[in-house]
Amino acid sequence: MLIVHVHVRVVPDGVDAFREASLANARESVKEPGVARFDVIQQEDDPTRFELIEVYRTADAAAAHKATAHYAAWRDSVAPLMAEPRSSTKYRTVFPETL
Amino acid sequence: MLIVHVHVRVVPDGVDAFREASLANARESVKEPGVARFDVIQQEDDPTRFELIEVYRTADAAAAHKATAHYAAWRDSVAPLMAEPRSSTKYRTVFPETL
Repeated sequence: MLIVHVHVRVVPDGVDAFREASLANARESVKEPGVARFDVIQQEDDPTRFELIEVYRTADAAAAHKATAHYAAWRDSVAPLMAEPRSSTKYRTVFPETL
Repeated sequence: MLIVHVHVRVVPDGVDAFREASLANARESVKEPGVARFDVIQQEDDPTRFELIEVYRTADAAAAHKATAHYAAWRDSVAPLMAEPRSSTKYRTVFPETL
């Protein structure tokens, strides 16, 4: 499993639009066979900060996700909402072993 | 649901011991009725960095976790392994709605 956390900060006016675009993207992403999880979470004390928690069954699945129409639509719709460039961190699982 | 990400950096010699202590803690923590998830993940490009991804059904469940014997054992055993103080960030879920 490959786990990717995407760290996002949006402009204050972009919170609702980011949320909607990311919901639409997540609903399609979880249908991809290589996606085990695609969570979207919002920081309690700063609603302009979000994390995408993407769990892929293989490294190829992460590349396949970036080739989908829903990813492209999300990427383009959220581009003007970013307060700073997105960053991401890759992890491997320790527990649960099945993650 | 209350989501807590705990950010950990351990000393290089502490990686294996932290991993084992956190596995033991996670295996017990997922048995708590208020715990929906208790993932432990390790950063790909820096194995001294870990995240605990704790998903609680209620805020009370987070407090209940800190009152358990397995939490106390974990806290004490990892204390000498920390390279810097732990920090945590709280989130609410956007997707999936059932998280």
